[in-house]
Amino acid sequence: MSFCSLYPALLVTSPWSCSENHLGSCRKQLMFCVSRRKARRGAWTGVSCSAETRTVVIGLAADSGCGKSTFMRRLTSVLGGVAEPPRGCNAYSNTLVGDATTVICLDDYHALDREERKEKGVTALDPKANNFDLMYEQVRALKSGVAVEKPVYNHVTGRLDPPELIRPPNILFIEGLHPLFDPRIRSLLDLSIYLDISNEVKFAWKIQRDMAERGESLESIKASIKARKSDFDMYIDPQKQYADVIIEVLPTRLIPDKGATEVLRVRLVMKEGVKHFTPVYLFDEGSTISWTPCGGKLSCSYPGIRFFYGPDTYFCDEASVLEMDGKFDRLDELIYVESHLSNLSTKYYGEVTQQMLKHADFPGSNDGTGLLQTIIGLKIRQLCEQIIAGDSSHGLKRKQLRRCLRLSPV
Amino acid sequence: MSFCSLYPALLVTSPWSCSENHLGSCRKQLMFCVSRRKARRGAWTGVSCSAETRTVVIGLAADSGCGKSTFMRRLTSVLGGVAEPPRGCNAYSNTLVGDATTVICLDDYHALDREERKEKGVTALDPKANNFDLMYEQVRALKSGVAVEKPVYNHVTGRLDPPELIRPPNILFIEGLHPLFDPRIRSLLDLSIYLDISNEVKFAWKIQRDMAERGESLESIKASIKARKSDFDMYIDPQKQYADVIIEVLPTRLIPDKGATEVLRVRLVMKEGVKHFTPVYLFDEGSTISWTPCGGKLSCSYPGIRFFYGPDTYFCDEASVLEMDGKFDRLDELIYVESHLSNLSTKYYGEVTQQMLKHADFPGSNDGTGLLQTIIGLKIRQLCEQIIAGDSSHGLKRKQLRRCLRLSPV
Repeated sequence: MSFCSLYPALLVTSPWSCSENHLGSCRKQLMFCVSRRKARRGAWTGVSCSAETRTVVIGLAADSGCGKSTFMRRLTSVLGGVAEPPRGCNAYSNTLVGDATTVICLDDYHALDREERKEKGVTALDPKANNFDLMYEQVRALKSGVAVEKPVYNHVTGRLDPPELIRPPNILFIEGLHPLFDPRIRSLLDLSIYLDISNEVKFAWKIQRDMAERGESLESIKASIKARKSDFDMYIDPQKQYADVIIEVLPTRLIPDKGATEVLRVRLVMKEGVKHFTPVYLFDEGSTISWTPCGGKLSCSYPGIRFFYGPDTYFCDEASVLEMDGKFDRLDELIYVESHLSNLSTKYYGEVTQQMLKHADFPGSNDGTGLLQTIIGLKIRQLCEQIIAGDSSHGLKRKQLRRCLRLSPV
Repeated sequence: MSFCSLYPALLVTSPWSCSENHLGSCRKQLMFCVSRRKARRGAWTGVSCSAETRTVVIGLAADSGCGKSTFMRRLTSVLGGVAEPPRGCNAYSNTLVGDATTVICLDDYHALDREERKEKGVTALDPKANNFDLMYEQVRALKSGVAVEKPVYNHVTGRLDPPELIRPPNILFIEGLHPLFDPRIRSLLDLSIYLDISNEVKFAWKIQRDMAERGESLESIKASIKARKSDFDMYIDPQKQYADVIIEVLPTRLIPDKGATEVLRVRLVMKEGVKHFTPVYLFDEGSTISWTPCGGKLSCSYPGIRFFYGPDTYFCDEASVLEMDGKFDRLDELIYVESHLSNLSTKYYGEVTQQMLKHADFPGSNDGTGLLQTIIGLKIRQLCEQIIAGDSSHGLKRKQLRRCLRLSPV
């Protein structure tokens, strides 16, 4: 059996042809690509036939400036190698390609460019500014093992650049503002994640970036947050109810000063009953536990560390929550925390700690953002393995399973 | 080597002779008893020589009406058999004798009888009403393996009855108002326990007993509590600072109504560094953990159950605290809780649960009082074994060790 589909070019709002460079980089993948001539004809394009494959699709929704890129770097590291822009393609490509993963940014599906949004008075958060039909068709194609020519939104010019070829990877991440907005796209996702940064933390991060690094004034930062807030609340935030996994980043509760954001409380909400995803637990599955591990086995300076684990409901779904509040003093001691967590989907004792040590320079490595993102990476690896193993038993080639399993040391 | 001591009768304030019955019951123990003739002479009495033995001495301090007798029944059950008054002795004896344990009540060392206390205007809580010299001498004698003739305070007549012979047991409990008051007696204790019942709970228990069962008025109960409070605060309560183990019984925190006593929060405070006593811990030694075990594995009706474990300080000493707030719905499910507790000093998996089920009809069997008292019983058994094993290596007969170890199934 092989997958083969055609996608009409009229769904695409961006200029629709492969550049010389772009095709150059695709030569090795000719079996996935239609010819440049066909592409130029403009009738049917973004079309290819692949060998028998099955792409696992993960959606990651978050507002901009919420640490998605660090999260993706952690995920792709766990899943195999470094994620980099496709070689030889548009220098402004938003795509990252790793050994087994491809991350596409949904900004590439902007239906209106910056100028047009300005004219019509809509923000990029407004669904009207995005092409969900094309997004759906292309994600569906990739999931079925079909390469596509995806538009590229140039964040510098604010316009659409020539498209780039995306081959179906083992694991496809679609990250951006709206991966969970369209029900058709949601139905394609094997796992959906929502990165939920509280207003206090978002504000603190924006101040740090835009004021300290870009010299913006506090007033202008406040104004830009305010301008986006209404659309964010209307179109972005409600998506979290559909997510399988939610990472909430909140101010600490370890410091009496309410809303202190120099220390973070990070909650991993894991819905029950998600296929191929068994929630992580602390000490005892199904119990409610608050754990302060500080003592002889873990160095903790003020204000210490507190973990929480327990059942909860998220909107109307049952969920398990694992929470970490505080900062690690010494990352190598993390093994002590790791040893009390179960269902981590590690391949060997201490893998979480090793991953954290490997990327100790990433932002959030000493707090719950790094820890819980790393854990999610391991869970996704297992999910991928299980999906492909399942598909394999339904006739897919074992080769892909081996490729996927090879990613992780055993 | 054998122990042999003489204790002057003049230390004894009670009539000092063995009754016919009393001696009758002691016939089997003649090696420990002086003759009746000698006893009647009144010069040296309470004297005997024993074989090489070493009695472990445990002090249990608590106010009256604080559940000491239920505690003692649980302890003696764990330590071997049922504790009963010495056969054939004074029907008003306060002593309980089990296979390996003897419990003596320190009320027997009242220096003033009820009449005299009334005359002098002192309560039984006042040290002046108690003979600490005799208490010390006799506990010291028993600890050294020497039998004594202990006074008997008759709680019905309020006077001293003829003394009873107490042979040195494997484990001697001295329970009452003042086991930790006199520093000489404290120095004899291998373990000291303070049963600390909060005022709210003490009041609720007294109401239940004296009002419901004895028909006393609420006003008279309040008046009697008030009358004792000053002496209690001055002479009884301060002893807890010297205890190795403290059981605090407090109102629940699971119900918003402050001071609710229909559900109890029971805290086991275990000081660090007590010889032969390793504190029990929940999940992870040295951490601070709050655990709500309710869920699929433990039935919990309102208001549920919450455990707490963590390091603390008690007066100026470092301690570990294990706390249980709430009630069990089903005692047989206790095995689930037991499986997450460590350093329980059990001999086999599930021994705590088995002990609790065995005495399901005892007061407090469905809450933390029963659970933590049972655990203390197991810890005392281990302490006894370790002390005797230690002494054994210093020349004591192995026979006693075997007697002690035989108490518990292996």
